[in-house]
Amino acid sequence: MSQTPTRAPKAMPRHLLSIADLDARLIRTLLDTAAQMQDVQRREVKKIPTLRGRTVINLFFEDSTRTRSSFEIAGKWMSADTINITGKGSSTSKGESLRDTVMTIDAMGVDALVMRHMASGAAHQVAGWVKAHVINAGDGTHEHPTQALLDAYTMEHRLGDLAGKHVAIVGDLTHSRVFRSNVLSLRMLGADVTVVAPVTLMPSGIRPWSEADGFALSNDLDAVLTGEGPVARVPDALMMLRVQKERMSGGFFPTPREYTVGYGLTRPRLERLIADQPHVVIAHPGPMNRGLEISADAADAAQSLILDQVAAGVAVRMSVLYHLLAGEEGSAA
Amino acid sequence: MSQTPTRAPKAMPRHLLSIADLDARLIRTLLDTAAQMQDVQRREVKKIPTLRGRTVINLFFEDSTRTRSSFEIAGKWMSADTINITGKGSSTSKGESLRDTVMTIDAMGVDALVMRHMASGAAHQVAGWVKAHVINAGDGTHEHPTQALLDAYTMEHRLGDLAGKHVAIVGDLTHSRVFRSNVLSLRMLGADVTVVAPVTLMPSGIRPWSEADGFALSNDLDAVLTGEGPVARVPDALMMLRVQKERMSGGFFPTPREYTVGYGLTRPRLERLIADQPHVVIAHPGPMNRGLEISADAADAAQSLILDQVAAGVAVRMSVLYHLLAGEEGSAA
Amino acid sequence: MSQTPTRAPKAMPRHLLSIADLDARLIRTLLDTAAQMQDVQRREVKKIPTLRGRTVINLFFEDSTRTRSSFEIAGKWMSADTINITGKGSSTSKGESLRDTVMTIDAMGVDALVMRHMASGAAHQVAGWVKAHVINAGDGTHEHPTQALLDAYTMEHRLGDLAGKHVAIVGDLTHSRVFRSNVLSLRMLGADVTVVAPVTLMPSGIRPWSEADGFALSNDLDAVLTGEGPVARVPDALMMLRVQKERMSGGFFPTPREYTVGYGLTRPRLERLIADQPHVVIAHPGPMNRGLEISADAADAAQSLILDQVAAGVAVRMSVLYHLLAGEEGSAA
Repeated sequence: MSQTPTRAPKAMPRHLLSIADLDARLIRTLLDTAAQMQDVQRREVKKIPTLRGRTVINLFFEDSTRTRSSFEIAGKWMSADTINITGKGSSTSKGESLRDTVMTIDAMGVDALVMRHMASGAAHQVAGWVKAHVINAGDGTHEHPTQALLDAYTMEHRLGDLAGKHVAIVGDLTHSRVFRSNVLSLRMLGADVTVVAPVTLMPSGIRPWSEADGFALSNDLDAVLTGEGPVARVPDALMMLRVQKERMSGGFFPTPREYTVGYGLTRPRLERLIADQPHVVIAHPGPMNRGLEISADAADAAQSLILDQVAAGVAVRMSVLYHLLAGEEGSAA
Repeated sequence: MSQTPTRAPKAMPRHLLSIADLDARLIRTLLDTAAQMQDVQRREVKKIPTLRGRTVINLFFEDSTRTRSSFEIAGKWMSADTINITGKGSSTSKGESLRDTVMTIDAMGVDALVMRHMASGAAHQVAGWVKAHVINAGDGTHEHPTQALLDAYTMEHRLGDLAGKHVAIVGDLTHSRVFRSNVLSLRMLGADVTVVAPVTLMPSGIRPWSEADGFALSNDLDAVLTGEGPVARVPDALMMLRVQKERMSGGFFPTPREYTVGYGLTRPRLERLIADQPHVVIAHPGPMNRGLEISADAADAAQSLILDQVAAGVAVRMSVLYHLLAGEEGSAA
Repeated sequence: MSQTPTRAPKAMPRHLLSIADLDARLIRTLLDTAAQMQDVQRREVKKIPTLRGRTVINLFFEDSTRTRSSFEIAGKWMSADTINITGKGSSTSKGESLRDTVMTIDAMGVDALVMRHMASGAAHQVAGWVKAHVINAGDGTHEHPTQALLDAYTMEHRLGDLAGKHVAIVGDLTHSRVFRSNVLSLRMLGADVTVVAPVTLMPSGIRPWSEADGFALSNDLDAVLTGEGPVARVPDALMMLRVQKERMSGGFFPTPREYTVGYGLTRPRLERLIADQPHVVIAHPGPMNRGLEISADAADAAQSLILDQVAAGVAVRMSVLYHLLAGEEGSAA
């Protein structure tokens, strides 16, 4: 409902902090450019001069091979200078404030700050301080917008236009920034969304949010998978979330086995789902806990998008870097 | 007095280990080139081909986001290949000697070794072993010459010629390589210098050194700030040093609060100083302990040079890399 | 005997996992190209466009300054994009399987995976999973093929054709991947090889292997050095292996001193050896334990190849990257 046609179209934002900074038209622009970037990715010589002389800082206060490497490759293929700074080596470990750390990096004359931080809202704060363009590469349990863009890109590539498609997002919603960003982007693109989790992993405040943004809630995975959930159709796409074991301080579910029984994409669930919906696709943001939230059969199935998601991640990040750093900012045509 | 006109002018040294390797004329050359490099830094496309095909190693046995990133950016903007090696990942952690570690890196065919080490004199030793140009990026409590160059650059930019200006350097002198390098460069440039610290943080041997190089000592910050110290003028520039909490093994001052009361640039001190000397500028090498050696008001004041220092750091390091690696070595004209 | 002329010549393999993937002709090709790459290494501007737009990942699950930097420099000098991923920052630290970690990196569209792993056979496994070219940069106690190539390159440079030369490899055979790779390459090149170790550091299964591949075993270093070992000639080259203290769980020899007495290249042994064989050369893969397996006199002697090995390492890795990534794969002419 934030997409009613009476709203003026948004301009490409200066920073990418949240999917809420975008609208359906801007997402379309970013995904279309990502498709062009995938052409580069498929070449033998993966190099375009677009960001020559621009400096991209990967400022990661939490480890993330996948996201950091993806942004680093994206920047290098576009001829940017890329520099990695980790929280451990940074001056914050000497007691410096986050503000002083990022102001210092910014003052060197960098163009983009790709930032992963354990605190929700950190990227928003930083964007208020610096001259560089800030890209939120995950802030606490809040958002991870490039993940949602690559998920949309990958699902659309297999399913076509996502408008009217049914996407179920399953798992540890409380600790998932991926879920928050995906709900926003999928709703903007017109998909029907069901989010599925045990009661203990439903974040507080999700009910009013689901009503405002028009997505469905369920605690019953099997009902959702058989079209007997609140969206009365078998899903076209299933997104399994990582059980964030490292974020859990216990008590969310009795044992890993019980989680799998209730909410894992086990082989029997997979087989029944494929029988009901042969074109179904399965996404996971990685890293996977095989055997916990997703079975090896599902991860490696022909229906799995998982490696496509990784590939699309580089292209989507190239697109985001392009539109923030090299594109015509604020152009609406 | 090491700058008497009867001395022959020095040639640009092969390594930058200490400010003592330079003289006023060479500092002028380095700062003039840094000004040209700041023009590059202000461009949208920050890239010059000067060091294409040269390899710069950042060999950091101690963490330092700020200095390592600054050199890495400087190298990349000049098209050098830059490679980071940290003490933790290095073979010294397998029991290899420093000499074998640096000889090994040198043997690969690198052009510059930018080195931070916890031992005073380490860079000097290394310079005696390797073919590469060595840049001392901080050795123990000894020197940090590029910091002093960027400090001079920044102060000069706001105050004009530093000759005859009064600079007060305040704080933990015992543990500060920044102070040592700055006293040397500021005296070469003709500034009057007062160094201020509690008795417990005055390094041994400072009195004969101050007499030889002609700088003043004080234990009374308020006297110095009001023009009642040994240099009987209100300072034009104030350099607050970081309290090196991680280097202190206790006993240097009773409590942080007492340090601030005696030697911190608190808000009342700042206000009185600005009233007495409206053009005063305030420098700090970072990372800051806000509320300890410098108040937030002072750090963020219009008089603060702190972010200018960071920006100048990249330009000064580009200049140093240029003159060591690409310049006409030994030219005296 | 695996090199009998009746065998068809091998094609350049897709991956470099083991010296056994090569034959004498392919080693010759790699070393000849390395010689050309050393010309680049000796230039002031060390940059060739050969791998522009190719992406080389250094995936190191164990620290290794020397090998990682060598590959990184090799890649950068050839204009490749190079990206470092360490085991600590990687998703395997979040419980992801090795397969998922490397499949993820591979899916981004990278060209080469240079991999160091603590498990013997890890690189072979990975090569079976990914589309990228895999270069084994050390897998457990198994192999380190580029080390053997640079050793051969360096020895040949000083001694000429290695066919018929006598090379003694001395030390901790059990924990040495360098020894395994070197025995294979030296035998392919026609050298006579004696491996020397205390009984406790002779790997199990070495006797049948030595019979199959035609190399000699000895527990008596002094006999080998004086031409009274199983190969009845004074060695032309001596390769001292690192005592892998960090890999030893005790019990292999009573004290470091006793190791040195029996198997170290001490000054007296060095002097007698040089007297007997003036052209003898001494190699060590580094990092050295000076005073344990090699004396400082030997390490720094004119006969020492140690820094030449390091220099050759970059050139050999450039050659390997060239032949795997840019060369005509599978060409036999």
